[in-house]
Amino acid sequence: MPRKAGRSGRPVSRAGGSGPPRPRDVEVLHAAAEIFYVNGYANSTVQDIADAVGMLKGSLYYYIDGKEDLLYRLVNEIHDGVEQALTAAFEAQGVSALERLELYVRQQVTYNAHNLKKVSVYYHDIDQLSGKRRRDIEARRRTHDNRVVDLIRDTQAEGQTRADLDARLLANYIFGTIIWTYRWYRPEAVPAAELANGISRFVRYGLTGTEPLRHP
Amino acid sequence: MPRKAGRSGRPVSRAGGSGPPRPRDVEVLHAAAEIFYVNGYANSTVQDIADAVGMLKGSLYYYIDGKEDLLYRLVNEIHDGVEQALTAAFEAQGVSALERLELYVRQQVTYNAHNLKKVSVYYHDIDQLSGKRRRDIEARRRTHDNRVVDLIRDTQAEGQTRADLDARLLANYIFGTIIWTYRWYRPEAVPAAELANGISRFVRYGLTGTEPLRHP
Repeated sequence: MPRKAGRSGRPVSRAGGSGPPRPRDVEVLHAAAEIFYVNGYANSTVQDIADAVGMLKGSLYYYIDGKEDLLYRLVNEIHDGVEQALTAAFEAQGVSALERLELYVRQQVTYNAHNLKKVSVYYHDIDQLSGKRRRDIEARRRTHDNRVVDLIRDTQAEGQTRADLDARLLANYIFGTIIWTYRWYRPEAVPAAELANGISRFVRYGLTGTEPLRHP
Repeated sequence: MPRKAGRSGRPVSRAGGSGPPRPRDVEVLHAAAEIFYVNGYANSTVQDIADAVGMLKGSLYYYIDGKEDLLYRLVNEIHDGVEQALTAAFEAQGVSALERLELYVRQQVTYNAHNLKKVSVYYHDIDQLSGKRRRDIEARRRTHDNRVVDLIRDTQAEGQTRADLDARLLANYIFGTIIWTYRWYRPEAVPAAELANGISRFVRYGLTGTEPLRHP
């Protein structure tokens, strides 16, 4: 099977592209996620990852451009998952904008709950990406964020949520609630479905809420 | 002025204790926060901090036990600030539990908005603390978290918020919204008071919300 030539001229596997990666790639990426999660990206070496998958470091370079390449692929994999959640929400038929937003929140929380280690590496180490890789990821994040802001504005335009709240600020509050799960959520204590349902309700109420009764 | 002897027998300043620290201590801690924020704790050295405050490394050890000591002090400083916010909320007179909770959220957001770099170091590098320091901080966090959970339960007991939501999960959703600000909030774009007001409303609605109108 022909392989694409990477920037360095070495044969590399696709990073964040289309089509399924080769199983050996998946294994390498999984091992990298584990090692970055445990040691942090800054303290991890390509040698650690080679040891984990039982390869010589030189052989590992057949699959990767270097340590940053692995981080970049991990981060793109997270974006692929996150975009699936958003696309499913946008494509839902016959439902209100608020229901689409709730669907997005539930799917996003569920994805994160099932990928806690990778999501943790994403948020802990994304700033370690440099140059074009960093710009590419920042562009993907902006696109994602803007689509969620649009979805919130749709709920406001449909009159289902409070129109007196800033949609971009609301998006960040929602992201905080969803993303922070990687710091505290333990699947053995709370099923992912309960978490997804709880956060989607909290968000829905947060956008539609009424003033509470004041203390007498 | 007599100084306390540290674990190592060297004279050290107080870490996270009571009373105002000496100005030189404040300067050292401020420089450490800047350097940890820019380079990350793992990539920072005591030499970097000595250079930043214009001291010899040997002289800096007059003030600190080592790099981890600086991180520990920073983390305790954040906890001091956070506990002030919580204590102010608990001590507010003649207001409902929900108003106390809102006050806590506003004060906490405001504190974070004014201490973005230190809060960022806290959440990025707290796992680098080891041994007794780590256990001390984990105990402070548990105490804080439990007090917020109690406050939420008080709002439920007073009938002001939905009692069908789990108070501990709600506390984590709220923490996410508050804490995540360190990743996206820019004071030049949104005044801290607007952020604090926006998040406290989002949280209040999130706890008191009613089911929205369904799509026709």
